Amino acid sequence: MTPKEVAPGSRRFRAVIEYDGTRYYGFQRQRAGAPSIQAELERAIAQVTGSPSRVVGAGRTDTGVHALGQVVSFTNDWPDRHGVDALLRALNANLPADIAVTELAVATPQFHPRFDARQRTYEYRILNTPRRRPLWRERAWHVSQALDEARMNEAAAMVVGEHDFATFGRPPVGENTVRTVYRADWQREGEWLTFTVSANAFLQRMVRSLVGTMKVVGEGAWTPGDFREAFEARERRRSAAVAPPHGLYLVAVEYDE
Amino acid sequence: MTPKEVAPGSRRFRAVIEYDGTRYYGFQRQRAGAPSIQAELERAIAQVTGSPSRVVGAGRTDTGVHALGQVVSFTNDWPDRHGVDALLRALNANLPADIAVTELAVATPQFHPRFDARQRTYEYRILNTPRRRPLWRERAWHVSQALDEARMNEAAAMVVGEHDFATFGRPPVGENTVRTVYRADWQREGEWLTFTVSANAFLQRMVRSLVGTMKVVGEGAWTPGDFREAFEARERRRSAAVAPPHGLYLVAVEYDE
Repeated sequence: MTPKEVAPGSRRFRAVIEYDGTRYYGFQRQRAGAPSIQAELERAIAQVTGSPSRVVGAGRTDTGVHALGQVVSFTNDWPDRHGVDALLRALNANLPADIAVTELAVATPQFHPRFDARQRTYEYRILNTPRRRPLWRERAWHVSQALDEARMNEAAAMVVGEHDFATFGRPPVGENTVRTVYRADWQREGEWLTFTVSANAFLQRMVRSLVGTMKVVGEGAWTPGDFREAFEARERRRSAAVAPPHGLYLVAVEYDE
Repeated sequence: MTPKEVAPGSRRFRAVIEYDGTRYYGFQRQRAGAPSIQAELERAIAQVTGSPSRVVGAGRTDTGVHALGQVVSFTNDWPDRHGVDALLRALNANLPADIAVTELAVATPQFHPRFDARQRTYEYRILNTPRRRPLWRERAWHVSQALDEARMNEAAAMVVGEHDFATFGRPPVGENTVRTVYRADWQREGEWLTFTVSANAFLQRMVRSLVGTMKVVGEGAWTPGDFREAFEARERRRSAAVAPPHGLYLVAVEYDE
């Protein structure tokens, strides 16, 4: 669904949003009463500007998933003379403490954060240590068993390029399961294991499904060969259990300028 | 108050505790119904062992203050044959997700975590960036105005050594305000400013008071000379406003072995 045409006197805005997803039922507006990032943004925009606006996001992050660089658009008649930075500050003053607008600019009237996105980057953080870490309980997946990141990187290397990712997620209605992954690798820093993955687009639950399946490779239950077989089977049921949402961060969305 | 003698069949345990202090009214047990770290630990110990134990902590962290290395003791008749690691695991299974026991060992019957401590180390984290960061809102002090860490380090250097810290905190009943600081410095990494301070012991609110006063030096409102004058005045009212609790972490307590 393309946002409506921009009415005379209105402009389309593009914002970068950071949030702690813990308290929300994902990015997208849900039934009344279920908190979502979209609903909070729409409430703050209406409150600050007096004009209701529909917010469109680049990625529909799930319940508990975080964002450092979600991109959204909205159309609003906020007057140029009041300044865009004043709007940014007013929005931040009216958003809850777990959501912030980090950048705000006027976009072209045609700008659509999802359809125009050229590349998305996610990070998934595993805390790979025997004891749980209370300060990170909603920010990373705690895995007690030692994971072998060299094996996980063997699996990660297989997903780079254009492939059918049917094993690792479902497509939105009317789309196929082929995606192009530009980067996929694990980095270890002490007890931290971070997976970085960039692609033109992702299937539903794709990053968490990849992480969950690479994790069983890392703990030794699967070989990298098992991963390849599951990947090549192109069957959703061949994925291992999806990783929990609270280790996942949408870090950046890129556009052709 | 020294813990009671260890009864026959009981042993004294020493534990290292990590917690997210956000939800708690500090370490120490409060009036009924106000959650505290001590009360949660005592509840878990009684639940696991069937024997009530009083928990003593090395540092009485305030509401909202975190710990990576709080040290506590308790006396309990948990039998040797069940193993100390089994007790550690059972405690972690019975503690809320925001508190964890990271180490547990049998101590001498005389061990007292507060009186025996030789050195405590705290860290204070400032996120020094124009926009607030939702994922860090309960983990660091957000300061928008650029802080000059070279000036803050001039002030920090003044507090190293044995000094009267009356400007920066009140002593427990019956103690004076002289303390020995072994280390005090600010490190910058990008938008992060971290203050590390080690001392033989601290006055109440001393770290937050030092940080709050060094912050006004860093933003330029005070000169390092103003800091020195306030320090040398040895008057509590000469401190700048204390820094908020959620940037403070008790990171380690050290003992002579």
